[in-house]
Amino acid sequence: ASALMLSAHAQSNAPSSNASLVSMQKNANDWVMPTGTYNNWRYSPLKQINTSNAKNLQVAWSMSTGTDRGLEGQPIVIGNMMYFETSYPNYVYAIDLNHPDQIAWKYSPPHDSNAPPVACCDVVNRGPAYADGMVYANALDGVLYALDAKTGKVVWQAKNAHPQKGQTMTGAPMVVGDNVITGVAGGEYGVRGYLTAYNAKTGKQVWRAYSEGPNKDMLMSATHTINGATGKPIGPHSSLKTWQGNEWKVGGGTTWGWFSYDPKLNLLYYGTGNPGTWNPSQRPGKNRWSMTIMARNPETGEAKWVYQMTPHDGWDYDGVNEMVLVNVDDKGKEVPALVHFDRNGFSYVMNRETGAPIAIHKYDPSVNWATGINPKTNEPIVDPAKMTGNNKDVKDICPASQGDKDEQPVSYDPQTKLFYAPLNHLCMSYQAFNVKYKAGFPFVGAIVNMIPGPGGYRGRFIAYNPMTGKTIWQHHDMFQDWGGAMTTGGGLAFYGTLKGMFRVVDAKTGKMLYQFKTPSGIIGNPITYMHDGKQYVAILSGVGGWAAIGMADNLHKASAGLGAVGLNATLTDYTNLGGTLMVFALPSKVASAN
Amino acid sequence: ASALMLSAHAQSNAPSSNASLVSMQKNANDWVMPTGTYNNWRYSPLKQINTSNAKNLQVAWSMSTGTDRGLEGQPIVIGNMMYFETSYPNYVYAIDLNHPDQIAWKYSPPHDSNAPPVACCDVVNRGPAYADGMVYANALDGVLYALDAKTGKVVWQAKNAHPQKGQTMTGAPMVVGDNVITGVAGGEYGVRGYLTAYNAKTGKQVWRAYSEGPNKDMLMSATHTINGATGKPIGPHSSLKTWQGNEWKVGGGTTWGWFSYDPKLNLLYYGTGNPGTWNPSQRPGKNRWSMTIMARNPETGEAKWVYQMTPHDGWDYDGVNEMVLVNVDDKGKEVPALVHFDRNGFSYVMNRETGAPIAIHKYDPSVNWATGINPKTNEPIVDPAKMTGNNKDVKDICPASQGDKDEQPVSYDPQTKLFYAPLNHLCMSYQAFNVKYKAGFPFVGAIVNMIPGPGGYRGRFIAYNPMTGKTIWQHHDMFQDWGGAMTTGGGLAFYGTLKGMFRVVDAKTGKMLYQFKTPSGIIGNPITYMHDGKQYVAILSGVGGWAAIGMADNLHKASAGLGAVGLNATLTDYTNLGGTLMVFALPSKVASAN
Ligand SMILES: O=C(O)c1cc(C(=O)O)c2c(n1)C(=O)C(=O)c1cc(C(=O)O)[nH]c1-2
Ligand SMILES: O=C(O)c1cc(C(=O)O)c2c(n1)C(=O)C(=O)c1cc(C(=O)O)[nH]c1-2
Repeated sequence: ASALMLSAHAQSNAPSSNASLVSMQKNANDWVMPTGTYNNWRYSPLKQINTSNAKNLQVAWSMSTGTDRGLEGQPIVIGNMMYFETSYPNYVYAIDLNHPDQIAWKYSPPHDSNAPPVACCDVVNRGPAYADGMVYANALDGVLYALDAKTGKVVWQAKNAHPQKGQTMTGAPMVVGDNVITGVAGGEYGVRGYLTAYNAKTGKQVWRAYSEGPNKDMLMSATHTINGATGKPIGPHSSLKTWQGNEWKVGGGTTWGWFSYDPKLNLLYYGTGNPGTWNPSQRPGKNRWSMTIMARNPETGEAKWVYQMTPHDGWDYDGVNEMVLVNVDDKGKEVPALVHFDRNGFSYVMNRETGAPIAIHKYDPSVNWATGINPKTNEPIVDPAKMTGNNKDVKDICPASQGDKDEQPVSYDPQTKLFYAPLNHLCMSYQAFNVKYKAGFPFVGAIVNMIPGPGGYRGRFIAYNPMTGKTIWQHHDMFQDWGGAMTTGGGLAFYGTLKGMFRVVDAKTGKMLYQFKTPSGIIGNPITYMHDGKQYVAILSGVGGWAAIGMADNLHKASAGLGAVGLNATLTDYTNLGGTLMVFALPSKVASAN
Repeated sequence: ASALMLSAHAQSNAPSSNASLVSMQKNANDWVMPTGTYNNWRYSPLKQINTSNAKNLQVAWSMSTGTDRGLEGQPIVIGNMMYFETSYPNYVYAIDLNHPDQIAWKYSPPHDSNAPPVACCDVVNRGPAYADGMVYANALDGVLYALDAKTGKVVWQAKNAHPQKGQTMTGAPMVVGDNVITGVAGGEYGVRGYLTAYNAKTGKQVWRAYSEGPNKDMLMSATHTINGATGKPIGPHSSLKTWQGNEWKVGGGTTWGWFSYDPKLNLLYYGTGNPGTWNPSQRPGKNRWSMTIMARNPETGEAKWVYQMTPHDGWDYDGVNEMVLVNVDDKGKEVPALVHFDRNGFSYVMNRETGAPIAIHKYDPSVNWATGINPKTNEPIVDPAKMTGNNKDVKDICPASQGDKDEQPVSYDPQTKLFYAPLNHLCMSYQAFNVKYKAGFPFVGAIVNMIPGPGGYRGRFIAYNPMTGKTIWQHHDMFQDWGGAMTTGGGLAFYGTLKGMFRVVDAKTGKMLYQFKTPSGIIGNPITYMHDGKQYVAILSGVGGWAAIGMADNLHKASAGLGAVGLNATLTDYTNLGGTLMVFALPSKVASAN
C-alpha cells in the first residue's frame, strides 16, 4: 500500500439527478464549483501555461473588490461568466469575461451588523457555487441566497444561521443533486454544529444533520451508520454517551470547511469542528461527533460512516479540512479513498466507502500532542504531557490551534500522483480555564499563544505522498501559507503567501518558475480557465483570516484573536489590507504558441 | 507667436539656497517632487520604454495602500527609496525599491475625525514632497509633517489648517529654497485662503499670504505688485475694494492645487480658488484675488504679479490648476511663460516674468459662459445669459463647476512641444440661493446638476498647442479623465481613466500602444523612474475625488456631492473603491535590449 493511483479528472456515471454539474466539471475550460471538481482535486488539465513558459506569465487584468477584509474564496467560471464573492459585506460579482472592464452585476445583500463581532476568524467567505442558471452565496449573517445567474436578482433566500446565537456562515455551499448543501460556523460560541440541505430550486429545507445529540438529530442510525475507527455500527446514543449532561447542546462540531462528493457512491464528505469550549476539563468524554469525518447520502442526509480524528480535543484541532477523493492502491487493490490533512498534524487516507483507515502519518515531523495512532482503536495516542485542562499551562504543543494546516485547501495532481499542501508550522502554549455559556458570547476558555515551529518559520508548501507520509520537496515561508493550492496539466503548482507573493512552481521539483507581488497578502485559492483560446489563472489577494486576524481586526495584544495576534505581529511590515482580484495569463504571442 | 520653444528639462543657475532639489531634478532616474520637476512638466527623458516596445509593458509589482478612498497623488522616488501618501487617514509609505515586497516604514499620523466631513471633494491627498533627507506630508486635518526619510519619525509638525473652521489640506507641499510651501482647502466652507511657508528644517512659519483682505495680509504692494491684466500696479486696497463689507473674510480663494517654481526668476506660481459662496449675488464685486494666478517670491512671499482669470465667479471655476513653465516664442522673442488650463475652459499662456497674457484660447469648443477675452481689459466677456445669481435657474452652462479641467495635471513634452491634457467635458444647470456663513458648515448656496457635454461623453485626453489653441489629436472617454498625464523621452504619453484603464499612447499620433485594467478607477498621476537598469512607471489606482464622490462618499441623490453625483451614477457598473499602487515595466529581455 504505497502508491496513489490515477483516477479520472472527474467521476462519471453519476446516479444523481444533477447530471449537469457532474458533466460540467469535465469541461476543463471552466471552473464550475469552488473546489474545481466534486473530488476536491483543485486540478485542471489545462496546459497552455506550463513549465517551459510559466516564467512569462503576467497580470492580464485586475479588479478591486471594494472591500478590505480577508479574501479566502475563489471565483467560479461558467462559460464566459465569472462569479465571485467578497468577505463581509458579502458582495457577489458577475463578470462577463468578454468585458472584464465592466461589472455585469453586483449583488449587495442586506447585512446584519451583529454578524461580524461573532465571526471568530475574520469575516471571510469561501466562495459562491453555481448550478442550473443560479448562483448560491452564503452571507456571514446566516442567509443563503439563490441568485439568478443572469441578473443577480434573488430567486429565494434561506435563513440558515443566527448571529445572535453566535452562528455565522463563512464556508462555500456545494450543489449536489437537487440540493444546495451548506454549513454553519460558531464553534467558538458554543454553537451546536449542523449541515443543512436546501432544495436548489425552491430553497425549502430538505434535511439538517447535527453533529451532536440524539442519533436521529444527527441523521445517524445505531445499526447502519459505521464508525470507521472500529468498522462497527455506532450503536445507540453514539454522541450523547460521550458528553456530560447537556454539554452536547453547546457542543461545537461546526461545519465551516469544504465539502466533497462522490457521485458513484453518492456520498457527501465533510468534517466537523472543535467541541464546545476549548477547555477539555469542562466536557469529559470523547465529545462525539466533533472532529469527525462524515460520509452522508446527500439526498437524505443519512450518515453512512463517521470517523473521529481527535476525540476529546484539547487543542482546537477542528476536523473540517477538505477531503480529497482519489483511488489508492491498498495492498494491490484499487480502493476508493479520501485523503485529508487534519489540523492535528496527521494526514489520513481512508477508504471512502467504508470509513476504514488505510494510512495515517504525521505530515509535519514536529507534531507532539500525539505520538501516533493506536492500530487497535485507530485513535491517536495522546502524550499526557501535552494534554490541556483546567488551570494547566501546557507549553510547546505542536501544532498550535491553527494546526499544521487550516482551511487552506490542498491540490492533488494526477500526473505526479502527489498532494500539494500549503501548510502552517506552529507550536503553542495553552492555558484552559472554566467558562460559562451565554448565547452569542465567546465560549472559548483558553489563553493561547502561538509561536513559529522548530526552525523558526511559520509556513510550508510541500509535495507529499499520504500513503507513505513522505515529503518529496518543500518550501519554507516566514508566515503561514494560508492560501490554497492548485495544480494543472502544465506540470505546475500554484499558491500564494501571506506576504502576497503569488507563486508558480514546477510540480515535480518545486522549482520556482514565477512569482508576482500582488497588492495584499494571499489567503485565497487559485483557479484557472480558458477564455477565447487563452488560459487564465485567477487569485483573490486580500490578507486576513485567522492567520492575519491582528491586521484584519486591528488587534494588538499578543494573545488576542484566539492567541494568533502575537504570532504575526510583523506581517504589517510586508503587506496591507485590501481586496483585489488578480488575473494572470501569458502574453498573446507565447500563449498562441502553446 | 505660434510655436512653443524647447527649454531645458530642468532650470539651472538657481540663486536659491536649495541647490539640492534644483540639481536633483536633473537626474532622470528619480522623480524627486510631486510635479516631477519645478516647472511642472511631468516629463521624463527616460526612453527605455518607448513607442516600439510599450506594447510589452506588464505589471512588475503592486501594493495595496490599506485605504479605500480616492488616490490623487503620485509616489516620489529618490535613489532606491520610494515615498507615497494615501488619502485620509494619510498613511505615508516608504518602500526600498531593492525590496518592494516589504514596507520600509509607514507613518500613520494621528488624525482628527472632524476633517473628513469638511473635505468638499473626497478625502484626497496629492502626495508628499522630499528635500534633504526629509519627507514633507500634508494631512487632511491640517497638520504638515516633516518626517525623517530614513525612519519615518516625525522631526517637526506644524498645524496649518483647522477642520472646525472648515479648513483642510489636500494638496502637495513643495520645497523651495529653505521653505516648505503649503496651501489650504475649504472654499466651500467660507475659508479665507492662504499660502504658507515653513522653514524646512525647523517648521517655523516664515510667511503667510492671504488671497483676500488688506494688501499687507496678501503680501502685496500697491506700487510693486503688478496686475497682469493691466500691466499696472494693483494700487491700494486691491482686494478690499472688490468686496462688500466683510465678505472678504469668508472670501474663499483657497490654495489646494499644484505649485511651480522658476529658480532663475525666483518666483513661485500657484492659483487661488473660488470666492466664498457659490451665489455671486451675495458678493458683488470682482472678488479679488480669488480665481487668480499668483507669482510670489518664495523667500518672502511678496507677490510680484497677479492675474485674475474669472472675476466675480458665478460657476465655481477655481483657478488652482497648475502652471506649467515653458519658454515660448512670442513674436520672434523667446519669452519665459507659464501655461495654465483653467477650470473655466480657457488655456492661458502668460509671460511668467510680468504676468502679461500672451495667448488665451478656449481649449474646449463647448465653453459658453464667456464668448472670449476682452483684449483691452484682458478679462473674460461673460455671456449674461449664463451668469448665475440669486434665485435664477441657469441652464446649459459649459463647462460645469468641475471645469473643462480640474486638478488633474497636464504634461508638457519638449519633444513634440505639445501639452497633453486629461480633461472633463461637462455642462450644468446652476441655481444660486442665499446662504449664511457659519464656521465649519457648508457655505455653498447653489444647487448644481452636471451633465455630459455635447456629444454625450464626459472626458477627453488631448494633445494641444496653447499658443494656437489647436488640438492636434484627442480621445473621448465615457467619464472624466480625472488622472494626470506624463510624457517621456520614449515618445509616450501616459494617463489613466476613471474606469481604471491605465493607458500608454504615442505622443505624436495618440495611437493607443498599451492599456491595462487596474484594480480601481484612476485619479492619480503617473511617474517614472529607473532602478537597477530598468525603467518603471508607477500609478496609484483608487477611484474617488470629486469626479467619483458618489462612490467615495456613498451618496446617491443626483444633486449631492455639489452636483456631481448624478453625472457619474453608472460608474459603479465599471469599478470599485480600493487603493493600490501599480508599478509597470518591460519584461527583462525587452528592457535590456533598450
Ligand atoms: O469553529 C468554528 O465554527 C470555526 C469557524 C471558522 C470560520 O468560520 O471561519 C474558523 C474556525 N472555527 C477555526 O477554528 C479556524 O481555525 C479558522 C480559520 C479561519 C480562517 O478563515 O482563516 N476560520 C476559522
Ligand atoms: O475650494 C476649495 O477649497 C476646494 C478644495 C478641493 C480639495 O481640497 O480637494 C477641491 C475644490 N475646491 C474644487 O473646487 C474641486 O473641483 C475639487 C476637486 C477635487 C478632487 O480632489 O477631485 N478637489 C477639489
